[in-house]
Amino acid sequence: MAQESVTGAEALMSAAVQRGVRVCFANPGTTEMPLVAALDGTPDVRGVLGLQENVCTGAADGYARIAGHAAMTLLHLGPGLANGLANLHNARRAHTPVINVVGDHTSWHLPYDAPLTSDIAALAATVGSTRTVSGRDDVDAATRAAIDEAHARPGVSTLIVPADHQQERAAAGTATAPSAAESRGRRRTRVDSSRVKEVAARIRTTGASTVLLLGGGALTRAGQQAAGRIAAQTGATLFSETFPAVAERGGGLPAIDRLAYFPEAAIAALGSRDLVVVAGADEPVAYFGYAGIPSRLAHPETLASLARPGEDAEEALAELADLLGAAAPAASATVPKPGLPDLDAPLTGATVGQTVAACLPEDAIVSVEGGTCGYPFYTASAAASAHTVLTNTGGAIGQGLPVALGAAIAAPNRPVIALQSDGSGLYTAQALWSMSRERADVTVLIAANHTYNVLRTELNRHGESDFGPKAAALTSLSDPRVDWIALAAGYGVPGRRAGTVAELSQALNAAVLSDGPHLIEMAI
Amino acid sequence: MAQESVTGAEALMSAAVQRGVRVCFANPGTTEMPLVAALDGTPDVRGVLGLQENVCTGAADGYARIAGHAAMTLLHLGPGLANGLANLHNARRAHTPVINVVGDHTSWHLPYDAPLTSDIAALAATVGSTRTVSGRDDVDAATRAAIDEAHARPGVSTLIVPADHQQERAAAGTATAPSAAESRGRRRTRVDSSRVKEVAARIRTTGASTVLLLGGGALTRAGQQAAGRIAAQTGATLFSETFPAVAERGGGLPAIDRLAYFPEAAIAALGSRDLVVVAGADEPVAYFGYAGIPSRLAHPETLASLARPGEDAEEALAELADLLGAAAPAASATVPKPGLPDLDAPLTGATVGQTVAACLPEDAIVSVEGGTCGYPFYTASAAASAHTVLTNTGGAIGQGLPVALGAAIAAPNRPVIALQSDGSGLYTAQALWSMSRERADVTVLIAANHTYNVLRTELNRHGESDFGPKAAALTSLSDPRVDWIALAAGYGVPGRRAGTVAELSQALNAAVLSDGPHLIEMAI
Repeated sequence: MAQESVTGAEALMSAAVQRGVRVCFANPGTTEMPLVAALDGTPDVRGVLGLQENVCTGAADGYARIAGHAAMTLLHLGPGLANGLANLHNARRAHTPVINVVGDHTSWHLPYDAPLTSDIAALAATVGSTRTVSGRDDVDAATRAAIDEAHARPGVSTLIVPADHQQERAAAGTATAPSAAESRGRRRTRVDSSRVKEVAARIRTTGASTVLLLGGGALTRAGQQAAGRIAAQTGATLFSETFPAVAERGGGLPAIDRLAYFPEAAIAALGSRDLVVVAGADEPVAYFGYAGIPSRLAHPETLASLARPGEDAEEALAELADLLGAAAPAASATVPKPGLPDLDAPLTGATVGQTVAACLPEDAIVSVEGGTCGYPFYTASAAASAHTVLTNTGGAIGQGLPVALGAAIAAPNRPVIALQSDGSGLYTAQALWSMSRERADVTVLIAANHTYNVLRTELNRHGESDFGPKAAALTSLSDPRVDWIALAAGYGVPGRRAGTVAELSQALNAAVLSDGPHLIEMAI
Repeated sequence: MAQESVTGAEALMSAAVQRGVRVCFANPGTTEMPLVAALDGTPDVRGVLGLQENVCTGAADGYARIAGHAAMTLLHLGPGLANGLANLHNARRAHTPVINVVGDHTSWHLPYDAPLTSDIAALAATVGSTRTVSGRDDVDAATRAAIDEAHARPGVSTLIVPADHQQERAAAGTATAPSAAESRGRRRTRVDSSRVKEVAARIRTTGASTVLLLGGGALTRAGQQAAGRIAAQTGATLFSETFPAVAERGGGLPAIDRLAYFPEAAIAALGSRDLVVVAGADEPVAYFGYAGIPSRLAHPETLASLARPGEDAEEALAELADLLGAAAPAASATVPKPGLPDLDAPLTGATVGQTVAACLPEDAIVSVEGGTCGYPFYTASAAASAHTVLTNTGGAIGQGLPVALGAAIAAPNRPVIALQSDGSGLYTAQALWSMSRERADVTVLIAANHTYNVLRTELNRHGESDFGPKAAALTSLSDPRVDWIALAAGYGVPGRRAGTVAELSQALNAAVLSDGPHLIEMAI
């Protein structure tokens, strides 16, 4: 085996397989053809085509959030990477491992500054670490290093591969088996016990004036159960960060709402507390800066970090609960499932949130993008069937549909629901085509209010309550109204409209029961 | 007037108007709301909303190619800029002036690394020059400098404007009238006469073994007429660069074909010549590097640069023709217009090219993206009615529809045709919505072969003539076939299908005659 001559592209695929990569979300071009050919010789890696690169990168994010280990992308040069940067930005904020493979010109062609030449490394550096393969002999090690780094940070790790080094041949590398830790994928660093003890000591003095703010790795079932024990024991209040990458919900878990989006409300929740313990997240800060309102949402002297992103927040919470003498969790009380609102009620954020929560199938994954229905759903879904929520972590919109696609590929036996605002959905509507091609079991719910509603809210905050005609036009998606049923049909996805709770619940139940993707346009 | 207090956003708009900006292609977010409000108080600037930022940046490119002066964009932070970078890359390669306005967080909020924070300047630097407004007092000067620089290079000039400096108030700047040169927009530097004389001396010795390769500014009507005089006098052969930003065509202009895309054919055209005079372009290089084929398409010692991009190639060609004693152009011979192919013929690249050339209305603008119909059209259109062709200069696909939108807004009285391959069209299909909203007179012709055909050609070149199933899937747009009529309907554009020359010519003539956008899906 070690004597066999393989191309750089084949070596890259081998190293990726060895490190646990199973899916490649691709939109390749001329400079990636050797990698495309190598993919054909790599039965362990599935190729998924996106019509635009932000579909690929968002899907890689969604895949890894659910699978717990990274997928790879395959993008074409600087412009292809640029097209996928927005969702890599979200993956960076989600601390999601992504192996971002970008082809480059044949190395000796670069000095001639051909039309497609640009500074790929500079683009990639804005979202994570970057390495450029320097020759055929470098391919194996660079690929392994990129994958290991993606899991170790965790985050986006870009590997730039010039076309000639994809084509050159060398003896196949020795297939050193990865260590158990390397092949496990997502790994978290253990939190030092002394830090847990310090936090426990502070909580003993602050008691019910404590907030536990849970992000990322703290929002597993075990993490939330431990947090629930702490709350029961101490009277502490629990919040989830506003935009968690992954959050388990429902199925008897404690009802933990998200910290409010606007800083006034978030400061009201945190600012009067004696202690804000953050687990699995960084310090909470305002999404935007507003004159007269602090950027830091908690008083700095009240902050305590139990576990930062990448650290094992779940384990630290369990240890903290034990230190505080919190009782083992009570046998999960049978919480009454949320009921449907009045069947004839029109669809609003609130009735959509309640309807989706009531209809949610067991073990669903819900990709939430946009506030109109997203916030009400989160509130309503605490008592729903057990499910996993994925949110937009970085604010680069156009993330919800690609993430839903990636999640469906990671978990083909779980129903996936994309609860999607229309404005953000239009950024990457091309994801519908990949859902159709891959027969992904995704039910797309479009909240069609035909406005960039958050911007109207912001204009109001800015004191522009009387919009002029241009401000009205630049925040409106009517004239013409986008016809989502037609768009879905264009991309091969069956669609229908819903205007009432009855219509939505019926359409949602039918969509979940049948295979492949479906789209429901909800008139909000 | 000088005493009036205005916000930074208002000052930016005033300076832009003073410098000739008339259109803002926008996809704003929270941090750009003061600029949106200011736009409402700026009657001279039209706001055009794009559903995704690459629509905005491509439209700004198309607008300036036709208008001859820059439009501004308005983009939301790093992710919004990232979404529009691919078409800014194309604008950079087209040497198109673009005022790329990007909002940023309130300056004092940046240190907290909120979710949407990223390195905007690093992204912008990959496509042109960048300046960040440092305070309210800096707004007027920075805006003027950015616009002047965009026109002077010409190229993409990014202006990053933190939200607080948009809101802060100061006395309005003194409205110094711009100089005539400043308000003229696109300016070209005069070529030194000694260089023209040198080139003339070389042509006198190389005669018919000369090639004139015309790019950018050399492809005006006057530039091509001068080149035609030189060819008639010396026997020199004329080529257009493969992907000109703007080329006048037809209406009695000399038949100048494009230099071949693949390097073997381009080298065959240039490599045996004694002199290759380049006017309005840089040295011709291969699009991609292929093993065993040189990157430089002409022998270096045969190259002569008459005018580089940004220099006045038209004037230099006229001077060169005079120096060579070339006769004044003959009265434009009445060239027979190209006829329609057999009406029952199926649509192929060739029959589409001939049909569009035959049906082309007088003074049309044709945005060409993709090779399937693009190359045959270019060949066929030499004898068509006078028209202007815009091509994809940088190879970042998804450029044709946005450029057509921008061109239609720059020239509301000219018919615009987008001759668009399907794969690249799907990157920015959202442009259809803006065409509908703006009632843009664009006829979109989709060459629907349902493959990334260029990639199959490249796989063949790579020696992979027997594609494996993944390579076949990753270069295929069938399964499902995109339904462009449904997509167009989704975005508010009426569509129809054409399968024969008769159907295409009838649909094209009808679309051109009626107002607003239309889409024709051509079964290739």
